[in-house]
Amino acid sequence: MENYLNRYQEIRKTTESLCEPLATEDYVAQPISDVSPPKWHLAHTTWFFETFLLKEFSKDYREFHPQFAFLFNSYYVSAGERMLRPNRGNMTRPTVEEIYQYRKYVDVAVGELLSHIITDEMKNILEIGFNHEQQHQELLFYDIKYILGHNPLFPAYDKDFEEYFTEDWEHDWVQINKGNYKIGFEGKGFSFDNEHNYHEVHLEGAKISNRLVTNGEYAEFIEAKGYEKHEYWHSDARAWLEETEISAPLYWHKIEGNWHYYTLAGLKPINKDAPLMHISFYEAYAFAEWKGMRLPTEFEWETAANLFDWGKRWEHTGSAYLPYPGYTKPAGAIGEYNGKFMVNQMVMRGSSRATSSNHSRKTYRNFFHPHLQWHFSGIRLAKDL
Amino acid sequence: MENYLNRYQEIRKTTESLCEPLATEDYVAQPISDVSPPKWHLAHTTWFFETFLLKEFSKDYREFHPQFAFLFNSYYVSAGERMLRPNRGNMTRPTVEEIYQYRKYVDVAVGELLSHIITDEMKNILEIGFNHEQQHQELLFYDIKYILGHNPLFPAYDKDFEEYFTEDWEHDWVQINKGNYKIGFEGKGFSFDNEHNYHEVHLEGAKISNRLVTNGEYAEFIEAKGYEKHEYWHSDARAWLEETEISAPLYWHKIEGNWHYYTLAGLKPINKDAPLMHISFYEAYAFAEWKGMRLPTEFEWETAANLFDWGKRWEHTGSAYLPYPGYTKPAGAIGEYNGKFMVNQMVMRGSSRATSSNHSRKTYRNFFHPHLQWHFSGIRLAKDL
Amino acid sequence: MENYLNRYQEIRKTTESLCEPLATEDYVAQPISDVSPPKWHLAHTTWFFETFLLKEFSKDYREFHPQFAFLFNSYYVSAGERMLRPNRGNMTRPTVEEIYQYRKYVDVAVGELLSHIITDEMKNILEIGFNHEQQHQELLFYDIKYILGHNPLFPAYDKDFEEYFTEDWEHDWVQINKGNYKIGFEGKGFSFDNEHNYHEVHLEGAKISNRLVTNGEYAEFIEAKGYEKHEYWHSDARAWLEETEISAPLYWHKIEGNWHYYTLAGLKPINKDAPLMHISFYEAYAFAEWKGMRLPTEFEWETAANLFDWGKRWEHTGSAYLPYPGYTKPAGAIGEYNGKFMVNQMVMRGSSRATSSNHSRKTYRNFFHPHLQWHFSGIRLAKDL
Amino acid sequence: MENYLNRYQEIRKTTESLCEPLATEDYVAQPISDVSPPKWHLAHTTWFFETFLLKEFSKDYREFHPQFAFLFNSYYVSAGERMLRPNRGNMTRPTVEEIYQYRKYVDVAVGELLSHIITDEMKNILEIGFNHEQQHQELLFYDIKYILGHNPLFPAYDKDFEEYFTEDWEHDWVQINKGNYKIGFEGKGFSFDNEHNYHEVHLEGAKISNRLVTNGEYAEFIEAKGYEKHEYWHSDARAWLEETEISAPLYWHKIEGNWHYYTLAGLKPINKDAPLMHISFYEAYAFAEWKGMRLPTEFEWETAANLFDWGKRWEHTGSAYLPYPGYTKPAGAIGEYNGKFMVNQMVMRGSSRATSSNHSRKTYRNFFHPHLQWHFSGIRLAKDL
Repeated sequence: MENYLNRYQEIRKTTESLCEPLATEDYVAQPISDVSPPKWHLAHTTWFFETFLLKEFSKDYREFHPQFAFLFNSYYVSAGERMLRPNRGNMTRPTVEEIYQYRKYVDVAVGELLSHIITDEMKNILEIGFNHEQQHQELLFYDIKYILGHNPLFPAYDKDFEEYFTEDWEHDWVQINKGNYKIGFEGKGFSFDNEHNYHEVHLEGAKISNRLVTNGEYAEFIEAKGYEKHEYWHSDARAWLEETEISAPLYWHKIEGNWHYYTLAGLKPINKDAPLMHISFYEAYAFAEWKGMRLPTEFEWETAANLFDWGKRWEHTGSAYLPYPGYTKPAGAIGEYNGKFMVNQMVMRGSSRATSSNHSRKTYRNFFHPHLQWHFSGIRLAKDL
Repeated sequence: MENYLNRYQEIRKTTESLCEPLATEDYVAQPISDVSPPKWHLAHTTWFFETFLLKEFSKDYREFHPQFAFLFNSYYVSAGERMLRPNRGNMTRPTVEEIYQYRKYVDVAVGELLSHIITDEMKNILEIGFNHEQQHQELLFYDIKYILGHNPLFPAYDKDFEEYFTEDWEHDWVQINKGNYKIGFEGKGFSFDNEHNYHEVHLEGAKISNRLVTNGEYAEFIEAKGYEKHEYWHSDARAWLEETEISAPLYWHKIEGNWHYYTLAGLKPINKDAPLMHISFYEAYAFAEWKGMRLPTEFEWETAANLFDWGKRWEHTGSAYLPYPGYTKPAGAIGEYNGKFMVNQMVMRGSSRATSSNHSRKTYRNFFHPHLQWHFSGIRLAKDL
Repeated sequence: MENYLNRYQEIRKTTESLCEPLATEDYVAQPISDVSPPKWHLAHTTWFFETFLLKEFSKDYREFHPQFAFLFNSYYVSAGERMLRPNRGNMTRPTVEEIYQYRKYVDVAVGELLSHIITDEMKNILEIGFNHEQQHQELLFYDIKYILGHNPLFPAYDKDFEEYFTEDWEHDWVQINKGNYKIGFEGKGFSFDNEHNYHEVHLEGAKISNRLVTNGEYAEFIEAKGYEKHEYWHSDARAWLEETEISAPLYWHKIEGNWHYYTLAGLKPINKDAPLMHISFYEAYAFAEWKGMRLPTEFEWETAANLFDWGKRWEHTGSAYLPYPGYTKPAGAIGEYNGKFMVNQMVMRGSSRATSSNHSRKTYRNFFHPHLQWHFSGIRLAKDL
Repeated sequence: MENYLNRYQEIRKTTESLCEPLATEDYVAQPISDVSPPKWHLAHTTWFFETFLLKEFSKDYREFHPQFAFLFNSYYVSAGERMLRPNRGNMTRPTVEEIYQYRKYVDVAVGELLSHIITDEMKNILEIGFNHEQQHQELLFYDIKYILGHNPLFPAYDKDFEEYFTEDWEHDWVQINKGNYKIGFEGKGFSFDNEHNYHEVHLEGAKISNRLVTNGEYAEFIEAKGYEKHEYWHSDARAWLEETEISAPLYWHKIEGNWHYYTLAGLKPINKDAPLMHISFYEAYAFAEWKGMRLPTEFEWETAANLFDWGKRWEHTGSAYLPYPGYTKPAGAIGEYNGKFMVNQMVMRGSSRATSSNHSRKTYRNFFHPHLQWHFSGIRLAKDL
């Protein structure tokens, strides 16, 4: 029992500590619909435990505020009418302080509940709630960076924050031979529905790079007019480039002829040797085309993952986000979690600087629409045998 | 000299006192492009004095921050590149506190400057700056109401705030006879360029109501399906109704069959006897058509203004916002103030609960696009002789 | 009686002769929502006579097709549900031939009706129907030019069509003295409701040019970077320039450094001495600002009209389109004709190459949204005394 | 040689015969960006042979018109600047007759060229050109139906056209056992790049229905409020439903309580026993969810295809459109054909009433964005073992 309570408290604390460097104002804005205000993340993760744990299992629990379910429900449509997503940034109330009170109120009630018996059903909800909040920790990172990084003053989140590192081992190719392989989560511990069933796939074989693409390599692609050469791009990508006039990774700025980028430590010249970040699937694909290579599939990635170093960038794959054979949605509101996103999105594998360590497993499947750049994404190239 | 400094300090203090009831979060949001974040108003009015007074007339003045001119310049395009208006709500930095520091810094510098000689040129800028800040006080009222009134929690700005009142005198018509009349500002004291030249107009005569249209009367228009009957509406208004699905004044909500409205004191049942507020020109025109009457022109209004009680609602007129004969824009950046808005907007006359007393003169011309509802607007009917 | 029938037949024939140079395909397209397909004009003007004349006054009349009222009703909302305007270009049926059959069918029925008694009520409808069809003749010109002029092949409508001419008299200013003047339609003959009442206005006096602005003068404005200098433009105009990236009159193309324009005779180098055409109100205003002058008001224009030569360009005025004193809408569906457009539009005076001669009267008021360029518009400058 | 020329002539004739029932006006419209005007299809397929065959291999060939490459190039960006897709419907010139002249001109030149030697390179282009034109024949069917079916007069394309049929055999399930299977095109004859490489996949096993879903079954889904129950729909699908207000298959209309649909023979009551048509992937997925089943993957479909009757509806699959292992784009402009669409689209298998017989092979992969309804799509359900 203590184990669950400890984990609960630790996770909840981590979420709050991520917000510590923020000014109150930073909690409010929603600059684009994909970016939620930090205060919304704080409240939404709390609403999850209130709705699915306290209201279900704690007899005497009285909800903190009758309208919070409406305000902080996101996609769990079964659990009540939701607020339209692009309006979140206009909700100045409840205040940040009230939201912290809400967190405390729910935390106290959860503490009490977990000091008694913990049923299997509760454990199930707790596991999902933990993982859910950890996923929002990751989104918090992205969203905070977006809010600060789009401010003309480029304020630092933390002056000593190190987003970048180098991979200084020699470049090599990891080989996967033609054959059948096992894919998906097996064994104990938590996993998401989208990692199931554990099943077999046939691979034709491939080689995967033991290093990520660097900022310097990507800068060469830009210099080579890669953004202008239609032949590297998907048809939908070209429409996206035309509409957005994007011609570099997110957060890159050319200042007096030199590439700089915004990091959580402020605006800096790019480090050419460090792995690239903040490119969309469209860009990752175009870069690979330019190189005459390709992105690995998620199955190739999972099969070879033990043989290269990963865990600091979400890595683009060439796989669309689809259900595994035998996939079934969990019943009820929780069932909305993953299945409804299985169209128009691409799978990313790995994990990032912003990922909770217990999400860092080689079967974990993250997914994004192919135009998004604001997550901590990278490129690992592959090629046919 | 003291006179100017006193006025400066009083006006600056009034602006800040308007914001006193706000939570820090309320300063940040920009729910629609016409509504600016309160912190932007606080900074923009300060930028005005910094740019046009201090930088021009105070030798040793050092600007507070090199990028604030970019962030807080609005329409004064001559004074430097401006930030795109709909982005203001995403600018979480500078913080509210930093903006108050900015205000203090500029206030100190202005205090020092005004303790020496005040030239006529400076007086001119000061007068415009005072009036400019007072206009923003009025906008602050509207914008604060919009931000709080669109929050699902309907927070009160001030529980004792009285937005509504009744006009309990007997209804009558004020008559204007056919003839030539003098229009525009004449005499001493401050006035805006758009109130000039003082000139003559010919009127065919009219009768103007000595009372404003009430909430009750407008509710009857709604009951009579006034929003659905195309014959009362302009062609552009119908397109607006179709697109927005508007079918009542702003802030009106039907709750269990009864009309309520959001006031700065919270959500309340409507007071049927109180003057109507928050209707667009389109709605004012349609209501008048339904009544078989019309809106007064701004010239009729100005001519008859001494004969009825006004000053708590901006009153819609049937006049488009156009220059008076002989109108000339002032030279330089200040010249952008009014002239560039003289197309596609309708004139409002009077003043409102939110208006500085020194804007309450019968020659003052306010103007809005015909679809806007968020200002404290009302209807006074007129008819031909 | 014969008189009415003759006029009917002549006007109907004129409409059709305007379409004679068209290919069947040219009748179908609606490239922007303001431009209607020529076949729609042919059918809509026919629908007018069918609905307001034949169905009302011809006992035995059987409508040509039950759905044509839906397809070819435009803004006469009282007369039944209308088809959404931007969809007109997708209506490939009825075919052009069927629409000519519709015209013939209605023409025969009108011929029969008019061979009997013609009541005053019928005369009233006929007059409006004549003027209505003549207005559509004018729109047909504009729309045909738009459809052909936006085709990459720049097909000629008529190789010998002369759109341009020169005003080779010496430049001079026509003076209007300060005083009261009579405005509006008085006397016999047809006039529109918006030309009434005949009433008095006071003018402060002005000088009006006896020549129109030429293509050459406007080219100088472009060379002087007039489109980029914000100080000449309305605030709404700047937003329009940014959104559309317009930087020249409609139909102007710079080819190898020289301005060309599309005329109904094909693509040609501009004639610098000929009066300018195809500029919006926004552009006309900005040009006048650049010149340090202004546009005349519609009252100045009407007062001075006898003293200068006009009739080949619709001339921009500085007047918003508003009702005259005592204006009342006619009863019924016909009443929708003018009043509902009296917001957000500016008045044009004069007439154009495309105007029926009986619309060429100095009291006639045309009106357009301030961004439109596709009509045969020109600029005549004015200045204060 | 004759073989190629015969095939060329036959295919070209088929395209034209599809257009025979059209009025000239029907060739012009582009009601939505996905639907091209029939005259554009006629010209574009001709442009293909002119550009890739005649200009490359016929020494003396003189192009028909210098601007047609600009007007009728679609996605072959390498081959020159293309016209923006949504503008096609405004291009009234060249006329339909001129386009038929263009076809004739090119056909004569091709006839001459093919009467001499035919190199392997030419054969390759010819095969692609034949298949390309046949794909456009299929699109022509869809687009013609869209243009006529969105006309308020619901004109018939051919009064005797039979779109619908019944599958009157007993319902049963075709079983695929767990195991490795061969996928993709192998052997002789033409195939597209996206059918290669021939490769192995592992399947977990499934059952596939031997009948398509009928109109009656889908009507039950509608009655059961399937469009309103969020749990059956993807998240992107819900946004699509909200935006478009779609609540039935394309061309379905409820008239006095009974479902009707537009067929190429006109508006008719639905045939409940006939296979459903005109549903998007989103709807197919939601229907399967409602049934507690799923769509087959494209690999399951291909593996089992010999065991059920197919060929009259394109059948939705649960597979995203992605490259097969070892896929490489052909070099040059031709290489744009398929690869650039391999994101955001779903695979359809089978063929339809509108498909050329030589596209009816079980390895053929068609693909559409998941919201599109205008193709002749159907649903075949599957379930896990």
